[in-house]
Amino acid sequence: MTNQFYKKKNGIKLNDILLELGKNKQKFNPVIKDIKELETATKFDITFFNSINYLNILKVSKTQTIITNKKFLHLIPKKIKVIEVSNVLLSVYKITSLFYPDSLKENYDTEVSIIENKKYKKLKVGKNVLVGKNVNIGKNCTIGHNTIIESNVEIGENCNIGCNVILKNTIVGNNTNILDGSVVGKKGFGFFPSKKGNIRYPHIGSVIIGNNVEIGCNNTIDRGSLSNTIIGDGTFLDNQVHIAHNVKIGKNCIITGQVGFAGSSSIGNNVLIGGQAGISGHLKVGDNVQIGGGSGVIKNIPSNTKVMGYPAKNIRKFLRESR
Amino acid sequence: MTNQFYKKKNGIKLNDILLELGKNKQKFNPVIKDIKELETATKFDITFFNSINYLNILKVSKTQTIITNKKFLHLIPKKIKVIEVSNVLLSVYKITSLFYPDSLKENYDTEVSIIENKKYKKLKVGKNVLVGKNVNIGKNCTIGHNTIIESNVEIGENCNIGCNVILKNTIVGNNTNILDGSVVGKKGFGFFPSKKGNIRYPHIGSVIIGNNVEIGCNNTIDRGSLSNTIIGDGTFLDNQVHIAHNVKIGKNCIITGQVGFAGSSSIGNNVLIGGQAGISGHLKVGDNVQIGGGSGVIKNIPSNTKVMGYPAKNIRKFLRESR
Amino acid sequence: MTNQFYKKKNGIKLNDILLELGKNKQKFNPVIKDIKELETATKFDITFFNSINYLNILKVSKTQTIITNKKFLHLIPKKIKVIEVSNVLLSVYKITSLFYPDSLKENYDTEVSIIENKKYKKLKVGKNVLVGKNVNIGKNCTIGHNTIIESNVEIGENCNIGCNVILKNTIVGNNTNILDGSVVGKKGFGFFPSKKGNIRYPHIGSVIIGNNVEIGCNNTIDRGSLSNTIIGDGTFLDNQVHIAHNVKIGKNCIITGQVGFAGSSSIGNNVLIGGQAGISGHLKVGDNVQIGGGSGVIKNIPSNTKVMGYPAKNIRKFLRESR
Repeated sequence: MTNQFYKKKNGIKLNDILLELGKNKQKFNPVIKDIKELETATKFDITFFNSINYLNILKVSKTQTIITNKKFLHLIPKKIKVIEVSNVLLSVYKITSLFYPDSLKENYDTEVSIIENKKYKKLKVGKNVLVGKNVNIGKNCTIGHNTIIESNVEIGENCNIGCNVILKNTIVGNNTNILDGSVVGKKGFGFFPSKKGNIRYPHIGSVIIGNNVEIGCNNTIDRGSLSNTIIGDGTFLDNQVHIAHNVKIGKNCIITGQVGFAGSSSIGNNVLIGGQAGISGHLKVGDNVQIGGGSGVIKNIPSNTKVMGYPAKNIRKFLRESR
Repeated sequence: MTNQFYKKKNGIKLNDILLELGKNKQKFNPVIKDIKELETATKFDITFFNSINYLNILKVSKTQTIITNKKFLHLIPKKIKVIEVSNVLLSVYKITSLFYPDSLKENYDTEVSIIENKKYKKLKVGKNVLVGKNVNIGKNCTIGHNTIIESNVEIGENCNIGCNVILKNTIVGNNTNILDGSVVGKKGFGFFPSKKGNIRYPHIGSVIIGNNVEIGCNNTIDRGSLSNTIIGDGTFLDNQVHIAHNVKIGKNCIITGQVGFAGSSSIGNNVLIGGQAGISGHLKVGDNVQIGGGSGVIKNIPSNTKVMGYPAKNIRKFLRESR
Repeated sequence: MTNQFYKKKNGIKLNDILLELGKNKQKFNPVIKDIKELETATKFDITFFNSINYLNILKVSKTQTIITNKKFLHLIPKKIKVIEVSNVLLSVYKITSLFYPDSLKENYDTEVSIIENKKYKKLKVGKNVLVGKNVNIGKNCTIGHNTIIESNVEIGENCNIGCNVILKNTIVGNNTNILDGSVVGKKGFGFFPSKKGNIRYPHIGSVIIGNNVEIGCNNTIDRGSLSNTIIGDGTFLDNQVHIAHNVKIGKNCIITGQVGFAGSSSIGNNVLIGGQAGISGHLKVGDNVQIGGGSGVIKNIPSNTKVMGYPAKNIRKFLRESR
């Protein structure tokens, strides 16, 4: 899949990448096509290994070029070319900036203009709606007043976008509603903390919203860094929900008001989450899970369980202990 | 009280209602005037009984036609005509859609235009203020830039509405301030979860905001489904507060930042709620209650008590146990 | 430092202040120049003492005129002229209103107009950007669509202000980003609760944002009452963060999504705060503190400690107890 939101360099010689990382040139100097995550990297892409949790994916990865640090060197299959670095993520983001030179800018879209609704099929639009270049909008959509749809965004059929909404780096399915005041597709809250000043890293991922989804008012949904932030078909979000970068939410989930998700967590299908609950980063919540309001989830939750509490535990245990 | 926000059918024959519910026709076929809650239904209205908590109200209800399920059949007084259904709420919303055929749409107001401040008494308005049809605004009000006041909204005297505010299905009293970025009157987060796709239900209720109220920035206050969402006189809300459908808040309450209310809870007078506290749905909080910051209230709180904790308990008990 | 956001009376005779407080005239009747906090008051200013926590500051204060109540009378050094009142804060705000007669109004800025970017150096602006009088914007800034910059605001160089942002009573440093939908500089949630109706008090403080700061989407940052709300250099805030009046946040802090700060707390440098954590009012959090996600901080936290829980305690203790 090509990335419609960022211009990418067609290919970069491995030695140019090594130079960027402060490494010596090598004799074997193939053209690298892109930087991708372990799961999606082809044999022409460079990728990285930074956590033992991804060992099973490493074993089946098609990549031939991988970045890692000393600790994980022994885990990399011999057929893969390894580049050893001290800070894997910092190296990843240096390479991302090489492939996607525009990806560090995070300004408003200067190419928008007042929408001409004749350009779209059966579109109803409010006042002061701004739309960028190359925006696709399916038939029978409505877009409320003062809303901004940035360049290259795609919206399916029969969608209702509210007023004061901002959509960028986002692909929306069919029959989906996004309500007033929500900001979708902003870059994630990702950077390298440093006493000399935090280093912002590029976010080339998108937000992918499925069919029959509802996004409530004043939500914030950040786009992914290398992968995408995903909201599955049939999932409904209430007001003031915050979804950080790279979060994947499954199908038919119900997420009530003021729930927050830290980065990179993945949530199964048919999950119910009560108001103000928080889900820490890099967790896996299974299918058919119910999370009580106000819970703080700090570890993985297996499918078909009900949890509550801070930290979240079996709901019966929580209610018994808190009498 | 007639509903100024939705067109209602004048009356529907009982047999047409039965047909909609998949029931057989009956000989006794009166005209039903409206669908209402148990408390407000007259003898010409249809209503419903779905929880034992409302038994005292049932005993004094004036209704002559009621929907309920098998479990509650024996509780309905004999003089009331009963329609037994398997899913009470689903039936209620089918009937609501019959009476209020436009009530499922939730789009932006297409009838707004730039406000003409000569139409109102001593009104000061900012740039790009949009206003719908039949909007009443009392004298000496101010409305900030980019704010949208949808059709049929009423605002009292001496009110200050900030910038980027959206008001719909809302009636505001006198001397009330609504600050920047708040969205008031959106439909509630109510639907019937279903693996075939959630069924959104109509929200024909309004938001009723009293006199001398303050609503902070970036708040979300949803309108009621059948009843109204109410904010009592003299109540102040801080920023980023979320109030779900049908919530009733009393007079002179102080609700600090990021507090959230789930649907249909009722809060007394002179209640103080600390930051980030959450109140579950369908609860009753008494008068003069103090709820500590961060608390999670999951059961009724009697008047004149102080609670804190998750779940919330007597504040002294909480502080002792958490040492 | 003069206050660029409010007109101040040049000086007020002490007897006029006493009159406002319902006190008798006195023979010694100097001109008072301003009302200030204990730390910043000069010998020409009036100030107040209302908490034993400020005793060390009292001892070195340069003030010669102080308001306090009976309880603290014996603590005031003899060389300082004391005005004894029953409600210190109410008196403070009466005097503030004398010095700053416009400070109780909290309406939109009526003096804004569409920005002319020729007036500023290398400024890129979106559509419908409104700007007030006497606004300074440094070179190389960008300002997104529909954003409002109220009169007397100052923005440094190389700043990116997003879309739908509202800035008032705010001074922004260099290289700082403020993202979509944030409202900065609104008056704080401060008033005297009263059954006759809450008395709003004036907020003459500003919001001071440092260099290299990032403010996420849909944040709310309130300005101070007498002092300022401060965000230090290099501090990054995620989305939906709420910062109440008079909060001081140090340098290089990382504040993740949905965190909330109650009024007047002060946070050190290099502090990390996890998502949805809450910090109560009038607390002191030291340097290099880490506060886990979802924590509720209700007492001071010394430097170089890690806390978690509700109420927040040593993180190892929390994790051990919550197994």
